Amino acid sequence: MQSLLNEILDEVRPLIGQGKVANYIPALGGVKPNQLGIAVYSNDGELYHAGDAGTLFSIQSISKVFSLVQAIGHTGEDIWQRLGHEPSGQPFNSLVQLEFERGRPRNPFINAGALVICDINQSRFAAPSLSMRDFVRRLCSNPKIVSDAMVAESEYQHRSRNAAAAYLMKSFDNFHGDVEAVLRSYFHHCALSMSCIDLAKAFSFLAHEGFCVHSGEQILTPRQTTQLNSIMATSGLYDEAGNFAYRVGLPGKSGVGGGIVAVVPGQFSVCVWSPELNAAGNSLVGMAALEKLSARINWSVF
Amino acid sequence: MQSLLNEILDEVRPLIGQGKVANYIPALGGVKPNQLGIAVYSNDGELYHAGDAGTLFSIQSISKVFSLVQAIGHTGEDIWQRLGHEPSGQPFNSLVQLEFERGRPRNPFINAGALVICDINQSRFAAPSLSMRDFVRRLCSNPKIVSDAMVAESEYQHRSRNAAAAYLMKSFDNFHGDVEAVLRSYFHHCALSMSCIDLAKAFSFLAHEGFCVHSGEQILTPRQTTQLNSIMATSGLYDEAGNFAYRVGLPGKSGVGGGIVAVVPGQFSVCVWSPELNAAGNSLVGMAALEKLSARINWSVF
Amino acid sequence: MQSLLNEILDEVRPLIGQGKVANYIPALGGVKPNQLGIAVYSNDGELYHAGDAGTLFSIQSISKVFSLVQAIGHTGEDIWQRLGHEPSGQPFNSLVQLEFERGRPRNPFINAGALVICDINQSRFAAPSLSMRDFVRRLCSNPKIVSDAMVAESEYQHRSRNAAAAYLMKSFDNFHGDVEAVLRSYFHHCALSMSCIDLAKAFSFLAHEGFCVHSGEQILTPRQTTQLNSIMATSGLYDEAGNFAYRVGLPGKSGVGGGIVAVVPGQFSVCVWSPELNAAGNSLVGMAALEKLSARINWSVF
Amino acid sequence: MQSLLNEILDEVRPLIGQGKVANYIPALGGVKPNQLGIAVYSNDGELYHAGDAGTLFSIQSISKVFSLVQAIGHTGEDIWQRLGHEPSGQPFNSLVQLEFERGRPRNPFINAGALVICDINQSRFAAPSLSMRDFVRRLCSNPKIVSDAMVAESEYQHRSRNAAAAYLMKSFDNFHGDVEAVLRSYFHHCALSMSCIDLAKAFSFLAHEGFCVHSGEQILTPRQTTQLNSIMATSGLYDEAGNFAYRVGLPGKSGVGGGIVAVVPGQFSVCVWSPELNAAGNSLVGMAALEKLSARINWSVF
Repeated sequence: MQSLLNEILDEVRPLIGQGKVANYIPALGGVKPNQLGIAVYSNDGELYHAGDAGTLFSIQSISKVFSLVQAIGHTGEDIWQRLGHEPSGQPFNSLVQLEFERGRPRNPFINAGALVICDINQSRFAAPSLSMRDFVRRLCSNPKIVSDAMVAESEYQHRSRNAAAAYLMKSFDNFHGDVEAVLRSYFHHCALSMSCIDLAKAFSFLAHEGFCVHSGEQILTPRQTTQLNSIMATSGLYDEAGNFAYRVGLPGKSGVGGGIVAVVPGQFSVCVWSPELNAAGNSLVGMAALEKLSARINWSVF
Repeated sequence: MQSLLNEILDEVRPLIGQGKVANYIPALGGVKPNQLGIAVYSNDGELYHAGDAGTLFSIQSISKVFSLVQAIGHTGEDIWQRLGHEPSGQPFNSLVQLEFERGRPRNPFINAGALVICDINQSRFAAPSLSMRDFVRRLCSNPKIVSDAMVAESEYQHRSRNAAAAYLMKSFDNFHGDVEAVLRSYFHHCALSMSCIDLAKAFSFLAHEGFCVHSGEQILTPRQTTQLNSIMATSGLYDEAGNFAYRVGLPGKSGVGGGIVAVVPGQFSVCVWSPELNAAGNSLVGMAALEKLSARINWSVF
Repeated sequence: MQSLLNEILDEVRPLIGQGKVANYIPALGGVKPNQLGIAVYSNDGELYHAGDAGTLFSIQSISKVFSLVQAIGHTGEDIWQRLGHEPSGQPFNSLVQLEFERGRPRNPFINAGALVICDINQSRFAAPSLSMRDFVRRLCSNPKIVSDAMVAESEYQHRSRNAAAAYLMKSFDNFHGDVEAVLRSYFHHCALSMSCIDLAKAFSFLAHEGFCVHSGEQILTPRQTTQLNSIMATSGLYDEAGNFAYRVGLPGKSGVGGGIVAVVPGQFSVCVWSPELNAAGNSLVGMAALEKLSARINWSVF
Repeated sequence: MQSLLNEILDEVRPLIGQGKVANYIPALGGVKPNQLGIAVYSNDGELYHAGDAGTLFSIQSISKVFSLVQAIGHTGEDIWQRLGHEPSGQPFNSLVQLEFERGRPRNPFINAGALVICDINQSRFAAPSLSMRDFVRRLCSNPKIVSDAMVAESEYQHRSRNAAAAYLMKSFDNFHGDVEAVLRSYFHHCALSMSCIDLAKAFSFLAHEGFCVHSGEQILTPRQTTQLNSIMATSGLYDEAGNFAYRVGLPGKSGVGGGIVAVVPGQFSVCVWSPELNAAGNSLVGMAALEKLSARINWSVF
């Protein structure tokens, strides 16, 4: 596995330069584009990594999985009264479908859905940002994980589109908290800084029937775990979920920071990172690396 | 397995009456609603079935998989120049997205996509309807399979929505054949009459890395097989693909005749049939049966 | 004219009970539904009125005309860099078109357009609400006109949909001020309390080539006046502008308080008020009264 | 008036070159772009013209007014059960709104609406194309008017978008005739060849309370006439109706052949022609000429 990871990074590295680093906020735009890392964590406790696997980056939308897991933890199936688990077929920040469907987001991984999840969590936790941070720390047994305050603030300054989504849902009575406060939490989650190694470890419970070896906790039931993985499989990569299933064949979640996490149920969790994005907002080199990896060792669940 | 199938049919049979038989054409509306059958075909050649597993029904959109397999067979990756493999997030017959995306259907399982696939096949085969019929006969080694001419004619008489989709794509130069002729073929495919047993056998190559034990042919390469399964997983159940992944966790394809086919890669193919549909147009009792089956023997790929 | 007005009110009064008083905020929902008034002001200075023509009501969207006139006054043609003057063909508060057209509202009479106009005015006036109030007082020479603070506050509490529109435009860089502050101004304008007599007088300059006899001011140039009237004619009655043109044939503007103002260029201004609304959000009885009036004395401009 | 027309043509002629001749069919694409003509017909029987006012051109969508007048003639108010008279706020050939509004076109001047009108006429006339041709001949007392068969055939060959609209309406049960036959009629109407002089005369009844001086017939009642003019005012220039009202201030109708007809109720009818179109599909130079004319002699109805 170790040599395979090195090999694959060498094969995809020439693609660097074909994508574009996210630059809608200055704090993200400044990331060096030629970074590339990968980490794999196996269910029997082995960690493999290559490249810049220890470098911290902004996890962004990958945090939506953590929020969703928290919400499922305390609310269970009832969360589906507030949103769906269907692919949206629309850009991640579009309001069109949200208006037609009267404020009910299609799934928890488009922005509107993630905001509803944050709204749900906000009403449960006294300090939602800290609660999330501590939850993530436990998942990967790394007590040093923090949220980058500058990134969070910068996101907040550019909150207009997300604020519009939140207010639109509020107009349909599907958003109960204070919009500004929930947005603050949301951006703090997105601004968590983690490495490929952190994320591969943090996602390992999803390959392990919901059990986290790092904290010793049963995070989700086995059934909840397959359900969560199914949502990643159909909706985890924005408007490119079908293509990810086609090329990689694994449940996964991406972020505009350039990270992609994927799960091989029963076997592995993996995180790849390269900051340049393709047109759909997913890491261009990361997609290529996962495709090669999946093909080489026949990881596709399909 | 045999007793499990009987058990599950007994458990879901009380749900009959909660759905509605498709009635947009008289030929389908006349089907007796209380029929229920299931068949499982294992990769080691065992056939299990229960209920009305030998009764013929109209396969309808399940035929879209056969058309797609034919098109991949002779055209390969090039077919994706004409359509995508992303979930649509819209009803199966909507033209809205098709217009915004300039005549390029989202995937081969919405009607517009299936019509493009038929258009591609039409240009390859001298007699597309016969070619398809013979292909399906070989896949399940049943030389008696025929298309119901009355159903096909009735569909043709109600072709308006599909004709609109075809002409809209033609206006964007993504439909090359004669609209009427392609529609005739399309409806002949949809009108194929098959049983649960036929379909479980016909789909078994998708659980078997593309190899059909009935005809001895390698229908698709192993990689093409996982790709095709991935498309079923993200787009196979109309606007309920996410829910099917969530509840059942398998690649699958449904038809408004009440059939649902699913694949457990490396292990089984399965077909369930019950004519009453839920609001999304999928067999209500069939979904429930597959959900129970998947949960009971842990079939979810996720 | 006087007897004609009485006659028409008698004819339409039986329609009371067929519409519904706006009740999205409590302050509006409490209005007595059986009130009905009309006032006509002629270019030669005659005032005719009937029914509850002196009763104050909430002018709501009629205020959008005043805001637009102010904006044209200080910014001129340049305002059309920020929004259009085309009918929208969509409900007044829809965000769908606004997203497709990248934050540029179709016209100044849908909510998004009115918010952009308020945003423009906000940057010009030290105290936008007072400036507007004083402007309206001058237009109808009634120094007692005030905004109903309770209505304004209630609208603000229910601001979600308008806040969503403002933030969506901000995300496209077409909204420059503070969202909350502009919304406060907007709701203060909407909450102005005026009577049919006040409004007929206040709109008389639009029938008089832009000259206001009450204040002695040339409010708009004659050309600007025909332009403003043209926008009312194509977009003044929400998604029923075409029907108003068809039935009444005059430039006009309605509000959910139940008022409708119309202009007979070169001759009259008229205001009718009845709180019950039709499905499109326009005064049901008011529409009927204006249709009769227009037909009886051949007012249609077409 | 005569010298004014000459003057205005001289003023706008320099704009030739800024637009684009319609080229979606070869038969239209071959028209010489530098042609320019105008004709005015007064209610007291005077004809004024300048430039290429006698040259024949393809009237295209201007024919939609003639079809609508025929339909109103034999069906009256009942036609509004099949379509609306609201502006659409969408491109003339979009199917999006048509699907959302379940096959009911917004107005008779978008393509879908004109097709419904043709469908209505088709069921009334034994020979719809001849009936229309003869009607138009009578309206302008020119027995030589014919439809250009080559243009009609060429349009038919490119009928896909219109066929899609017709079939979509059929799927909603709002299109009763044979799609191909109705399209044939529709394109024959569009392919009528007329001059500015012909059209100014043919539209003069709309300035004259519905009475046609050329045939001596009362074509529409005075009330029907104002209603028809109101529909032209709110929906006559595709997705630029608001701009035409703003700049010209008259009921009008354009065609992609480069003609624009407008009506000054009670006074004049006018037709201008110049083949180059602006981005919205209206004659660029024609718009400019009408704007100047309207401003110069204060024609705006607003």
